[in-house]
Amino acid sequence: MVVSTINGTSPLSHSNGTTIPLSTFSRNSFVNVEKGDPVAFRPYWEKVRDECTVEIKGDEWMSYLGDTNNLCWYMVPQMRDAILRLHNVVGNAVTKDKFLVLGTGSSQLYQALLYALSPSESSYRPINVVAAAPYYSEYKDATDILQSRLFQWTGDAALYDKDEPYIEVVTSPNNPDGTLRVPVVNSGVEGKIIYDLAYYWPQYTPITDQLDHDVMVFTFSKCTGHAGSRIGWAFVKDIEVAKKMIRFVQLNSIGVSRESQIRAAKMIGVICDGYKNLKSIESDHLFFDYSKRLMKERWEKFKGAIEKSKVFTLTKYPTSYCHFNKDLSEQYPAFAWLKCLEGIKDGESYLEKLKIRTRGGGRFGVDAKYVRVSMIGTEDEFIELCTRLSNAKRE
Amino acid sequence: MVVSTINGTSPLSHSNGTTIPLSTFSRNSFVNVEKGDPVAFRPYWEKVRDECTVEIKGDEWMSYLGDTNNLCWYMVPQMRDAILRLHNVVGNAVTKDKFLVLGTGSSQLYQALLYALSPSESSYRPINVVAAAPYYSEYKDATDILQSRLFQWTGDAALYDKDEPYIEVVTSPNNPDGTLRVPVVNSGVEGKIIYDLAYYWPQYTPITDQLDHDVMVFTFSKCTGHAGSRIGWAFVKDIEVAKKMIRFVQLNSIGVSRESQIRAAKMIGVICDGYKNLKSIESDHLFFDYSKRLMKERWEKFKGAIEKSKVFTLTKYPTSYCHFNKDLSEQYPAFAWLKCLEGIKDGESYLEKLKIRTRGGGRFGVDAKYVRVSMIGTEDEFIELCTRLSNAKRE
Repeated sequence: MVVSTINGTSPLSHSNGTTIPLSTFSRNSFVNVEKGDPVAFRPYWEKVRDECTVEIKGDEWMSYLGDTNNLCWYMVPQMRDAILRLHNVVGNAVTKDKFLVLGTGSSQLYQALLYALSPSESSYRPINVVAAAPYYSEYKDATDILQSRLFQWTGDAALYDKDEPYIEVVTSPNNPDGTLRVPVVNSGVEGKIIYDLAYYWPQYTPITDQLDHDVMVFTFSKCTGHAGSRIGWAFVKDIEVAKKMIRFVQLNSIGVSRESQIRAAKMIGVICDGYKNLKSIESDHLFFDYSKRLMKERWEKFKGAIEKSKVFTLTKYPTSYCHFNKDLSEQYPAFAWLKCLEGIKDGESYLEKLKIRTRGGGRFGVDAKYVRVSMIGTEDEFIELCTRLSNAKRE
Repeated sequence: MVVSTINGTSPLSHSNGTTIPLSTFSRNSFVNVEKGDPVAFRPYWEKVRDECTVEIKGDEWMSYLGDTNNLCWYMVPQMRDAILRLHNVVGNAVTKDKFLVLGTGSSQLYQALLYALSPSESSYRPINVVAAAPYYSEYKDATDILQSRLFQWTGDAALYDKDEPYIEVVTSPNNPDGTLRVPVVNSGVEGKIIYDLAYYWPQYTPITDQLDHDVMVFTFSKCTGHAGSRIGWAFVKDIEVAKKMIRFVQLNSIGVSRESQIRAAKMIGVICDGYKNLKSIESDHLFFDYSKRLMKERWEKFKGAIEKSKVFTLTKYPTSYCHFNKDLSEQYPAFAWLKCLEGIKDGESYLEKLKIRTRGGGRFGVDAKYVRVSMIGTEDEFIELCTRLSNAKRE
């Protein structure tokens, strides 16, 4: 097993023409691509940092209330307007005739939805919650943490054969494997679908359709990279579902940070202004152009490293027409989903020996020969990841 | 029934020497003192608005992570330091040898604590959650919303006589009635206590003791009045409890808004700087001096109105020595707790007829002849409340 590092080499030329400092990685330090902290887009926000500056004075935004005229009373009008404008620019979701519910990240909305979609008749409780494997590693724990009598995690949607109502979570593009998804439960019983569209943004996937489902969840974290703000939102068709979600958010956290709302609204405004003034702006200053180019470059580099290693295979993605970019494009998912070749039974342990920390298939409801690798960490970390992977050899 | 309004009178002189505009209340509009939106302190933050200004640039605070060296990994060091400094200045809690857990308001921490304090042995589930009546109106729903198998709301702590483990919530000063509280369950079985100290700040009550309990919860909302920020914190003695709480916050909302943390840290810093530079600052610029004077003036005015009405009685509060202010002082609770005299069975309905919206005793687990009235709304609203109350007559 050979592990090489980039220590001692000259500063690397960054894809954007800037140089990045020498790697801080030593031979013994881990490359941590286990989590999905979306810091890859920070260089973009550095470019536009001043136009994105938000200033909040001491006496502003003190109240619990954001907009008493809105069903979602803790959401400020600026936040609502920014979200609607963003979907209008990107064209990834139909927002008309839907209720907009804001959450403290999409995690809170997931819980709010389980509560809101659970049947009120006690004979059907707990309702089964399923998602096709591989599924997001936190769904199970987020569903079962309080051992609710309203809902329970039931696992892989593809194996679901109960004669009972269910909630299917459809994550598309999927976390961890990046595939585009549709519901898979084939049951005679009524099912409710939560579309988790955290990654349905142009940097990760062609925008093939303006989606128009009853329940669609988005998050600011994976759209712009501002994970620290904890802003998520859901479009919901049924007012009763929206009302129950808002009641949940009220009891859970009495609304959503006003400071985060103001800042997210500002960021989204800067993105949308860019596309409004298309002709007078460099493409490097257009957020989705910048971030898609970054993801594309990373994926090309990554594929090269994987090919060199001869230890893993990668998920294949189709090419589709993107209505936003108006071109044919591949997918560039936020995570790579690696399958180890024969002989390696536990991908996470194998990569741990190469000082690469990943999240193994078991956490996603599949075999341990799979691992998830973040593609949205720092540039430094990503380059070191590629170096280490390309030197991986079969034991 | 006579209802008078202040419409048509000249602008009122404010307690701080400023004038406030003519009331916006008409004879038919409601005075809404049902909720506890703490906007009363806004005039203070207007005075210091510029020194409290927070500026956040586009590329700042993007990560999920706040401080990877802290058990509470989503809390930024500035937030931790500010909270510790505040308690050091006020002297209301012993912070040494405790773990600090940050939450999206204290509501989220309440749920995190129920999860963390529930027994792991399934034979004792669900654990009973109790609080002495009158208790905070949201505890019941916040406990039972997801119908957890881990815990269940069991009601008035004074009536608890089960031979089973329990969690007692001790809110002190209490919401709704402002009384100072100690645990009341008298049981041979082991009980766990959550101290909800949302109102244990010098503007509401003398700081009689530096409290040193195993679980103490505070909130930024009721301390400074910045309810929109959704910042709460808990001091926890047992590391296992702290770890479970942090796991809950992770699954529930992946941490707490970074923007809110930065702003809360700044605000707290301004308050503490004031007390550090005591001699060079006007007392009107000292937050707790300002806010205590405001509460005192409101309570004096309010007591006058109640006396005039001859319809209600008020809770009596003792006078105690305040270690923070170094004087003997009464309590000036954030809510007034009114008891209707004989003949009025439903206080909320009675006041509704006077166009005063309150929260009735039933919501707090006691008789409908009690009502809770917010003392921390806008000045305009408060003055109109007093006017209407002082004109109340027995039917």
